[in-house]
Amino acid sequence: MKRQFVVILSKNWYKKMSNSVIKIVDLFYNPKSVAVIGASKVPMKGGNRIVHNLHSNGYKGQIYPVNPNYTEEDDLCGFKFNKSVLDIEGEVDLAIFYVNNRIVTDVLKDCVKKGIKAAIIQSAGFEEVGEEGLKLRDEIAAITENFSKLHIVGPNCMGISRFDGDFGDKEGGFFTGQFTLTNYKKGNVAIITQSGFLNGGIAPLIFRQYPNLGFRYIVSIGNKMDLGENEFLEYILEDDTVNVIALYLESFKDPRKFISLCRKAKQLPKKTIILLKGGKTSQGMKAASSHTGALAENEKLIDAIIKQAGVIQADNFFEMFQFLRTFSMMYKSDKKFPREGNIALVVGSGGMGTVMGDVAMKYGLKFPEFGEKSYNILKSVFPDWMPPNRFALVDAWPTMEKAMMDAAKKAKNTAKQSTEKTNGNEKNRNPFRMMGSSGNVMQVIQQAVLEEPKIEGLFTSMPGGPRSHGGTMDFMKPMLERIAQYPKPIFFYSVMESEGSLEMLRLYGKYNIPLFTRTEDVAKNFAILVQETKNKEKFSKTLEPLISDK
Amino acid sequence: MKRQFVVILSKNWYKKMSNSVIKIVDLFYNPKSVAVIGASKVPMKGGNRIVHNLHSNGYKGQIYPVNPNYTEEDDLCGFKFNKSVLDIEGEVDLAIFYVNNRIVTDVLKDCVKKGIKAAIIQSAGFEEVGEEGLKLRDEIAAITENFSKLHIVGPNCMGISRFDGDFGDKEGGFFTGQFTLTNYKKGNVAIITQSGFLNGGIAPLIFRQYPNLGFRYIVSIGNKMDLGENEFLEYILEDDTVNVIALYLESFKDPRKFISLCRKAKQLPKKTIILLKGGKTSQGMKAASSHTGALAENEKLIDAIIKQAGVIQADNFFEMFQFLRTFSMMYKSDKKFPREGNIALVVGSGGMGTVMGDVAMKYGLKFPEFGEKSYNILKSVFPDWMPPNRFALVDAWPTMEKAMMDAAKKAKNTAKQSTEKTNGNEKNRNPFRMMGSSGNVMQVIQQAVLEEPKIEGLFTSMPGGPRSHGGTMDFMKPMLERIAQYPKPIFFYSVMESEGSLEMLRLYGKYNIPLFTRTEDVAKNFAILVQETKNKEKFSKTLEPLISDK
Repeated sequence: MKRQFVVILSKNWYKKMSNSVIKIVDLFYNPKSVAVIGASKVPMKGGNRIVHNLHSNGYKGQIYPVNPNYTEEDDLCGFKFNKSVLDIEGEVDLAIFYVNNRIVTDVLKDCVKKGIKAAIIQSAGFEEVGEEGLKLRDEIAAITENFSKLHIVGPNCMGISRFDGDFGDKEGGFFTGQFTLTNYKKGNVAIITQSGFLNGGIAPLIFRQYPNLGFRYIVSIGNKMDLGENEFLEYILEDDTVNVIALYLESFKDPRKFISLCRKAKQLPKKTIILLKGGKTSQGMKAASSHTGALAENEKLIDAIIKQAGVIQADNFFEMFQFLRTFSMMYKSDKKFPREGNIALVVGSGGMGTVMGDVAMKYGLKFPEFGEKSYNILKSVFPDWMPPNRFALVDAWPTMEKAMMDAAKKAKNTAKQSTEKTNGNEKNRNPFRMMGSSGNVMQVIQQAVLEEPKIEGLFTSMPGGPRSHGGTMDFMKPMLERIAQYPKPIFFYSVMESEGSLEMLRLYGKYNIPLFTRTEDVAKNFAILVQETKNKEKFSKTLEPLISDK
Repeated sequence: MKRQFVVILSKNWYKKMSNSVIKIVDLFYNPKSVAVIGASKVPMKGGNRIVHNLHSNGYKGQIYPVNPNYTEEDDLCGFKFNKSVLDIEGEVDLAIFYVNNRIVTDVLKDCVKKGIKAAIIQSAGFEEVGEEGLKLRDEIAAITENFSKLHIVGPNCMGISRFDGDFGDKEGGFFTGQFTLTNYKKGNVAIITQSGFLNGGIAPLIFRQYPNLGFRYIVSIGNKMDLGENEFLEYILEDDTVNVIALYLESFKDPRKFISLCRKAKQLPKKTIILLKGGKTSQGMKAASSHTGALAENEKLIDAIIKQAGVIQADNFFEMFQFLRTFSMMYKSDKKFPREGNIALVVGSGGMGTVMGDVAMKYGLKFPEFGEKSYNILKSVFPDWMPPNRFALVDAWPTMEKAMMDAAKKAKNTAKQSTEKTNGNEKNRNPFRMMGSSGNVMQVIQQAVLEEPKIEGLFTSMPGGPRSHGGTMDFMKPMLERIAQYPKPIFFYSVMESEGSLEMLRLYGKYNIPLFTRTEDVAKNFAILVQETKNKEKFSKTLEPLISDK
């Protein structure tokens, strides 16, 4: 018999969780005053940018720059420098470290002396660099009396972010990272990450690339010497405005607690957890160990944790953000989650339909047969020489050809002499515009499909972006507005497109319709909705493990 | 025992192939005169656009519009209408049909009478629509005496294209499709497809989205009533300017011949064949049958054909074009194909490195250990507190931090009073620009990696596009020029980017460096190069099947 890897939860373990964790994490997210250790007047230094990031995004509390190389005469953003935390007159809730790893322990002693209860150590050079780093870690544990005097986020992290409003709003948020955050949007998404760049250099790109994705929290937990994914997950689950939480982890700090928290999430309304586990393979693990000092975990154990936690697994960062967007939009627009994976496809090419047929099947999705009513509606817009399929794969190309022929006939009859005049009008000759236009054939097809009871969602495509359609996609608006009314999820994909897609993303995003560019993405993102429905059913009644090796 | 599906090739079968196939296909690609059946003065009609497409792209031969509704007084693009092919005075090499399926047989009789030897039937409504279509097919076989009098491409196709020069060049090419082709580029790629849209509505998008991909042939073979993938493949293999051929097939017309041709390609210099098989699953097959009338093929049989043919398999259209681009660039720039899958990764984030570690392993790729020489070079640019890995996964973030700190120190020493002046200069504060800049640290890392004998290729990333870097990527040029000199393939990925990517695609394409946006794409596209090396070794000596069920 194969050995089963099982994580046993003690009964009602989760009930024992106290409010103390919430209080501790709140020290980090809602400090009344912050000391920035390593603050600097040199703009290229991280300690400079951290102060700017706090200040320019509207942090209301007191900021104390700390650096022995400056005097009280010096200031940064109007805040006077202190040579040491011990020189600070007021109380300090949180210390943010951006200094060389060798200085950390000395300053930390001062912090404990000063009575500071929380520190974010953004410096690197600890477990991840071997022996010297391990020694530093032990020293920190001793100084903080095993973190009882002072709690730590990090080291080797890129800070935390709380979003209170959209960019430009005075209530921007609380940002301790060294990269200036701009163009962000508050929303129903949170991220807990062992890779700093998600709260660092890549964050502005994420905000731009996902203009409709709003955030509530991002936390870079680094080597998680003290606080880790579980404390932040527990904290974030208490926030009703958060619907989707993504974690990037290189190790599990306490798998039992993690499983228990994930199961708890399943029993809360409108919560989904997405996990990207870095270092699942031996090669990835080797990389993780030099990154966050994570120790190797057996791949089977990891799989068992994921299975028992009932989380949605992402395979890479791109996927993680795509999944975040899908769930975020589903919850925002109160869509009905699919259960059976019954979808309809409406495309303008038979080949695209065939390939989507294969891809959909790979992800467990099915095209059901149309009922008589919907089928008869469809038949009315198809030409005699090419009737529609009986199953929900609609190749709309023949309907477009028919519509073009009908239009041509009409044009011929009404303006026999002036046909050459319209010759140069490329828009009239673009059959794909019909797929996006508000009236006619496409409206009939979409309605037939979306009102068919067996169908749980619609995949549909639109070749090209603004460039292919005269520089704007505005002609899509009436159609998007119309189909967005249906409670069924609708996934659009724009084939062979990337340029101009930001305009499209914004347009579709307004209607909470996710826009994809690849067949696989469409199918996989629908499949995770089905998976989540089943996860919720499975874990709705128990926080106990479903598998046991007894 | 599991049953093995095996296709047996008769010995030296391929040698028996005669030149007649080449001559037949040449009738289609190089006709001296063309009759367009269903030509129309109404711009919305396909028959109108076909004549325009031939004419405006510089077809040099005679064009005869045929339509009984017009008289000799009427003309299209300066070519006089004929009521029937029998009224045409000159000889006709090729007839292109764009008329209702019910008219096809009558006109075809006239074509045979006229002595026309080739016809492209773009009309739909044959096998794919069931009984009526099957009857039409039988009639066509009878009229053409089993295609001995007249060869057919189609029906239910979107025509063929031959590219003689780039768009704008007078030697544009020969295009029989109904969508006007623009912005194309001549190059080393060919496509044989059972989905018309690749020679139709989607083609202009492909040309735009792949500005560095040049084409030599595209052929939409539709239902392949007579000529199919094998005839065109055989023809295209004779063209030395073509390096990569992609096929989208919904069925195999003659699997033995197909396998034999694919193996022949393996023995020719610089040839790769990519296959996307639509309708591999039962659901995809159902869709294919209503698309091109393809009959169900067993999935195991399909897999056996693919294995024995030694082709590169694509899972969807996006992948097919990405693979085409990768091979096209590899051949154009005479890169050395990898054999072991030993790669180096240079990134700016440890998390990205960890995830790429996992993804690379999934695709059979490895990060080898550095030799002493390269390792010592790397060590020189890393800070003491964070030495580089021993294996070829280089998280360059610490080198950037070190470079920033060194730069800050220097700035402090040389201009102690004027530091605030540079405060607003965001470029100086963007560490990621260092990854693209020509000098310094990144140059040292890239050189160490590319000169390490064990390493066969480099993956490297650049967060953001033009928007993140002051509107232009020109600062990348010296670096791209430098690394493009190495014979090892270099794959770039631009994380969280899509807008502005066309500018980047053009820039990278100039140096034949493929640019990706996703981790999986990078690994998969390198893995197919390794696979192709092994395919070539495997099939270099024999055209015989390697597996037998005897």
